Amino acid sequence: MNNRITNLFQVKYPIIQAGMVWCSGWKLASSVSNAGGLGLLGAGSMHPEVLAEHIEKCKIATDKPFGVNVPLMYPQIEEIMKIIIEARVPVVFTSAGNPKLWTSALQLHGIKVVHVVSSLKFAKKCQDVGVDAIVAEGFEAGGHNGREETTTLCLIPMISAEVSIPLIAAGGIGSGKAMLAAMALGAEGVQIGSRFAASNESSASEKFKNLIVEAQEGSTELMMKKLTPVRLLKNKFYRQVKEAESSCADPDSLRSLLGKGRAKKGMFEGDLDNGELEIGQVSAMIDRVKPAAEILEEIWQEFLVESKNLLERIHQ
Amino acid sequence: MNNRITNLFQVKYPIIQAGMVWCSGWKLASSVSNAGGLGLLGAGSMHPEVLAEHIEKCKIATDKPFGVNVPLMYPQIEEIMKIIIEARVPVVFTSAGNPKLWTSALQLHGIKVVHVVSSLKFAKKCQDVGVDAIVAEGFEAGGHNGREETTTLCLIPMISAEVSIPLIAAGGIGSGKAMLAAMALGAEGVQIGSRFAASNESSASEKFKNLIVEAQEGSTELMMKKLTPVRLLKNKFYRQVKEAESSCADPDSLRSLLGKGRAKKGMFEGDLDNGELEIGQVSAMIDRVKPAAEILEEIWQEFLVESKNLLERIHQ
Repeated sequence: MNNRITNLFQVKYPIIQAGMVWCSGWKLASSVSNAGGLGLLGAGSMHPEVLAEHIEKCKIATDKPFGVNVPLMYPQIEEIMKIIIEARVPVVFTSAGNPKLWTSALQLHGIKVVHVVSSLKFAKKCQDVGVDAIVAEGFEAGGHNGREETTTLCLIPMISAEVSIPLIAAGGIGSGKAMLAAMALGAEGVQIGSRFAASNESSASEKFKNLIVEAQEGSTELMMKKLTPVRLLKNKFYRQVKEAESSCADPDSLRSLLGKGRAKKGMFEGDLDNGELEIGQVSAMIDRVKPAAEILEEIWQEFLVESKNLLERIHQ
Repeated sequence: MNNRITNLFQVKYPIIQAGMVWCSGWKLASSVSNAGGLGLLGAGSMHPEVLAEHIEKCKIATDKPFGVNVPLMYPQIEEIMKIIIEARVPVVFTSAGNPKLWTSALQLHGIKVVHVVSSLKFAKKCQDVGVDAIVAEGFEAGGHNGREETTTLCLIPMISAEVSIPLIAAGGIGSGKAMLAAMALGAEGVQIGSRFAASNESSASEKFKNLIVEAQEGSTELMMKKLTPVRLLKNKFYRQVKEAESSCADPDSLRSLLGKGRAKKGMFEGDLDNGELEIGQVSAMIDRVKPAAEILEEIWQEFLVESKNLLERIHQ
């Protein structure tokens, strides 16, 4: 397959492994890139020197393109960007901030810049400031989601109708069928998080990976809407948040309940009771921890097979 | 196109116009059925004698199959079912209740029975009690939605993998592209509500129809989760609910704020401030009130064209 996304990133498959806090270090990113997708390091959970190390290790582990996801609210953002530019990372996905701030600076160094949005409004803004592509992420996604709560099924065609730069769909995609649906809606590529969080190469705690496999429908809920909405796997910490929100906790109480380091505690250290466990609705369909390359190949093969099946069902 | 849904209902297109309170009387249902889809009367907002009248008028207006959507919590359910059976309505969609109660009784009279669910759990239950097909409705849908908040993109493949009876997707579908995505996910048909609520033949107030056309992304929100969740268009009444929920109103206060007849007031009588306006997220993409037959034909043609485009994009 050849389209604007495979050409932009110089990859075989238009499949991006999402940059996720505590899950996507050099092992995962390089495995995905080696298998023909675009692997992303998740800078959101890395100190600058840790990111530098992951970039170096990723370069050794793959000669294929890879990228870094950078939340723009990151306190040491200048240092992070300097490291990325000096290391000649070919692709940067920015999120959680104003895409105007860094796009041209990165592009001047030949870096392809993609920004993550959850609404048409911000997708248009991204196009205006000249990003190379957009990731649009629906309500069902894990992690931090949009306040409009627009689902992937509604968001992708809405953006695709009004924005002409390449569009990558995210949220609810963990299979070839879902990828086919996303492409039917107007996306040219997909970004997949949760499915890769439960891969062998994910740096998440094995305990967290096993919990993802056990997740069923209704195992996650979008919480913390008074702060920044985040989709949580239902554990003890979730129930504390639920109780606080049910009794009308104000933003400050929620902030203090959340405290610091909860995501690390849960997703990286495996404290499944007290940690913050971010994952998408699609976790309900994840049945086994597998090598990232196998996940990628399965998704791609299912995508091809289902695309033919679909057409046969329609044009008998 | 020929599949289990077109065969089950004896229709040309596997497209069902949802039975909606205050929007879908005999004019809309017969127009959709005449145009090759399956039109449904929405019994939820009709007294038994009103339903009987709509069934008679629908029979005069079309010789094609049509159906009735019946919320099973309806107080005069026995009378409603008696009317449907005596009038030999060929299809009944049941919702909001236990599918075990009426399925066999209706099937004994040769009526095809479809039940509406929003979770895999209830989809399995429906299959066990022997319904002829299932509608699975995602978080983005208008009206009353599931507590799990599973989106259509996640819900359809989840059910399709574990249930073998025909599956109809609903929620977020108002175009041929979205229909194609639903079919890619494993649905054999689609149920479309919001797009038909804004048709010429919809019995909704013209004021409500115009407001649907004006809706943008973020114009709706799933509210009243302490009672029965319902997706509301953001008007004055919505803001009252929002305020009540933000200050932690209990279920009784919400019930009293809702009062009686709010949906009729808003959707049928056009009191856009004080009425309860139920609509799906897809309202953001509805740009004009049109004849139902034109809507159906446009969706179908886009579905065919996009299915060929998609395959060309994949298998160049």
